[in-house]
Amino acid sequence: MSKNLTKRADDYSKWYNELVIKADLAENSAVRGCMVIKPYGYAIWERMQAELDIMFKETGHQNAYFPLFVPKSLFEAEEKNAEGFAKECAVVTHYRLQNDPDNKGKLRVDPNAKLEEELVVRPTSEAIIWSTYKGWIQSYRDLPILVNQWANVVRWEMRTRLFLRTAEFLWQEGHTAHATKKEAIEETIQMNNVYATFVENFMAIPVIQGVKTESERFAGAEETYCIEALMQDGKALQAGTSHFLGQNFAEAFDVKFTNKEGKQDYVWATSWGVSTRLMGALIMTHSDDKGLVLPPNLAPYQVVIVPIFKNDEQFEAVSKVANEIIEDLKERHIRVKFDKRDTLRPGAKFAQHELQGVPLRIAIGPKDLEDKTVEVARRDTFTKDTVLLERINVVVENLLEEIQESLFNNALDFRNNHITKVDDFESFKDVLENKTGFVSAHWDGTSETEEKIKELTKATIRCVPLDNEEEEGKCILTGGSSKQRVLFAKAY
Amino acid sequence: MSKNLTKRADDYSKWYNELVIKADLAENSAVRGCMVIKPYGYAIWERMQAELDIMFKETGHQNAYFPLFVPKSLFEAEEKNAEGFAKECAVVTHYRLQNDPDNKGKLRVDPNAKLEEELVVRPTSEAIIWSTYKGWIQSYRDLPILVNQWANVVRWEMRTRLFLRTAEFLWQEGHTAHATKKEAIEETIQMNNVYATFVENFMAIPVIQGVKTESERFAGAEETYCIEALMQDGKALQAGTSHFLGQNFAEAFDVKFTNKEGKQDYVWATSWGVSTRLMGALIMTHSDDKGLVLPPNLAPYQVVIVPIFKNDEQFEAVSKVANEIIEDLKERHIRVKFDKRDTLRPGAKFAQHELQGVPLRIAIGPKDLEDKTVEVARRDTFTKDTVLLERINVVVENLLEEIQESLFNNALDFRNNHITKVDDFESFKDVLENKTGFVSAHWDGTSETEEKIKELTKATIRCVPLDNEEEEGKCILTGGSSKQRVLFAKAY
Repeated sequence: MSKNLTKRADDYSKWYNELVIKADLAENSAVRGCMVIKPYGYAIWERMQAELDIMFKETGHQNAYFPLFVPKSLFEAEEKNAEGFAKECAVVTHYRLQNDPDNKGKLRVDPNAKLEEELVVRPTSEAIIWSTYKGWIQSYRDLPILVNQWANVVRWEMRTRLFLRTAEFLWQEGHTAHATKKEAIEETIQMNNVYATFVENFMAIPVIQGVKTESERFAGAEETYCIEALMQDGKALQAGTSHFLGQNFAEAFDVKFTNKEGKQDYVWATSWGVSTRLMGALIMTHSDDKGLVLPPNLAPYQVVIVPIFKNDEQFEAVSKVANEIIEDLKERHIRVKFDKRDTLRPGAKFAQHELQGVPLRIAIGPKDLEDKTVEVARRDTFTKDTVLLERINVVVENLLEEIQESLFNNALDFRNNHITKVDDFESFKDVLENKTGFVSAHWDGTSETEEKIKELTKATIRCVPLDNEEEEGKCILTGGSSKQRVLFAKAY
Repeated sequence: MSKNLTKRADDYSKWYNELVIKADLAENSAVRGCMVIKPYGYAIWERMQAELDIMFKETGHQNAYFPLFVPKSLFEAEEKNAEGFAKECAVVTHYRLQNDPDNKGKLRVDPNAKLEEELVVRPTSEAIIWSTYKGWIQSYRDLPILVNQWANVVRWEMRTRLFLRTAEFLWQEGHTAHATKKEAIEETIQMNNVYATFVENFMAIPVIQGVKTESERFAGAEETYCIEALMQDGKALQAGTSHFLGQNFAEAFDVKFTNKEGKQDYVWATSWGVSTRLMGALIMTHSDDKGLVLPPNLAPYQVVIVPIFKNDEQFEAVSKVANEIIEDLKERHIRVKFDKRDTLRPGAKFAQHELQGVPLRIAIGPKDLEDKTVEVARRDTFTKDTVLLERINVVVENLLEEIQESLFNNALDFRNNHITKVDDFESFKDVLENKTGFVSAHWDGTSETEEKIKELTKATIRCVPLDNEEEEGKCILTGGSSKQRVLFAKAY
């Protein structure tokens, strides 16, 4: 188990890959670049979905479902969007297999079943959705449309890593339609806020909200808002994006409406999404050399109870107490699991729960029954305490809150210690190479300089933070004038 | 609205198609055979998902996610399964688009990005899942595996109808692995029971549980259990299936395990699924010439409150009472919507809620405020009652239960009146043509006779009911001997 886990300091990337497998979160499949999300990993994703879904609905959104396929002619309608995704599209060209006459028992694509028009497996759904919205929108009375979709998408990435970059991934994509530019921008910002709130409060990951530079923008967007997080290895990870799409898709699909004044106008659009990539962020922010560390708010099980016993009589006595605790914790809406497997010893169970990041472990043995106590162990700090049975429910409730808060604060300290202001290119490179993290620096505002810096250092502009202060300065590369610092980092 | 809805008696099929569109449940998309599930329709599906998911978890299952694509070589491994689905497979052959040199601004498939091995878009996931299970199973300790997946699947159907038969549909597919045949059969039966319970208790649709004949079995199954429902036009609809797969997939993918005795054996398998097809069953069982009728247990809103007012002052007074009712109903976990739109008159709102099947409507006007009453209208019976404000919460709670029960009982009466025993082929044809519904008849047990009857009458054997009595008889077509009656019907 964890004793075989590579240490972060030795090889962070290898540690991550091993951890995802060993903690039973996901694995590679027989399909290049596509992953299998295993039950334990999927249970965390379900927790994320449930919380996000509540937040989407509280902000007035409804779920719907649009086709997996996008006909090529629709896909290419918004040119920038099409250009941005064309190179990574899985394309369906045929709709039937037939027996292979040269190979008994094998199948081949039926050459007579070629589609007249190829279908793109959606890499994102703006095209199919805006071609649909055309039929839904005539007047301002039909607006806003506030729709979200939980779906799978496919982007044919050449280099893939479990959760972080996979050919198929799961996500949600919100697609809203508005009567005014102002309202669409407000929606874009609101959903970026929703993401920030979710990631900070549930995932315990502090994020910086900002906007992307033109070259990092979503293909087809006028402005891309984002939340950026920092992983333990000092690399940034884009955790969610919310796009103001202007009237680009409405123009491409001819979606007009009659406004209150009786005039025709194109509809304003937003789209926003987070994906199973968040699983990668969750793992890389909190976990350690012993395995996964999960924030209680997202842990499939917040507490696991392990019985210690040598015979059936002891097991029964311990189980009785365990079941009382479980009942009490469940009433407090705490997710608890009783690990009564008889195929593993307690030590092996401890190691597995440590590896899988269960926030709290309660052990109960015959000695505890005598003393009316139990042993409580924290996954994040490895501290253990003997707790009076009568106080266990309150202690667990408080500890779960404390762990959630502590994980966030640790991540926040780490992040804040890894935002470094620099004013010259040598320091810039030095920080990126040695200290790592975000580098706050002046930039002349041109895509050329941005590209050049990326070539020289592999760092990209993660965002222009929303809470930026105006400050006169000079571009670290060209010396050109600048009015504000932007955040650079190497990124996932 | 409903006044334009075709009557069931005039054209049942047209009525269905129109209702799906007019009630805002779903519509056809730009992709042949693929539907857009609109927010109101999707909200019903979400209710179904939520309840089924609870039932799956209560029976020990966990969710996971497997790839959308199946490499052709895996797909063809289980021959019967492959043969059954080969003719309706969407196939991905390329992974990139490029600018079309002959057509500025257009894209074409990049001929240099042809996949070495074609990928089938999953029509069902046995192949990809059993190729994965091979890595998960070594010993009996790894069993059972009780996994479910919520996913989209694609079957390239030539004739499609919203919800009932679409090229892409949403479903859940359970895939379990067991150490013994007995356990796998028990699981198959258990999940068919879960489906029956769900469909009867939540969808208010009575079902007959049975097993399929060999020719109607799932491709690759040893036995297919099913639940069969009857629609208002007298046609049957298969609402869910649960398959005992024997060791077929374990053999095809070489999935062996060491049993308790230390011997190697192939793993036993089941799979089971229900899909968005259930939406079609729901609509066709209960709805009427005025529109959709929803059972309260699945209605996105169980109650809608419509304010009647002529000025702002009246609106405020009515809203105050409405909000009190809402608060009270929400505490009772009743889903209630306050329809305070100012763009529609009450009459238009009434018509819309009727069309969309909201089980109860409460109207509150100035006169009601004086009398301390509200008007409550039932969607299923169109009965209206004036109810004292102080009793509204209890009345609503009771009415919702009554409606749920009444819908089920009406459907049950209809279904029971449409199971007809016949003992000769002329009567058989007559019942199918004129009375419609299930025909309970003797059959000689051969696929040839089954096929012949289908050719002659379009009726298929829906199932051999599980609660069948043994009875000597003669096949209605051939006169061959038979030991039990089976259920025939024309079906969706």
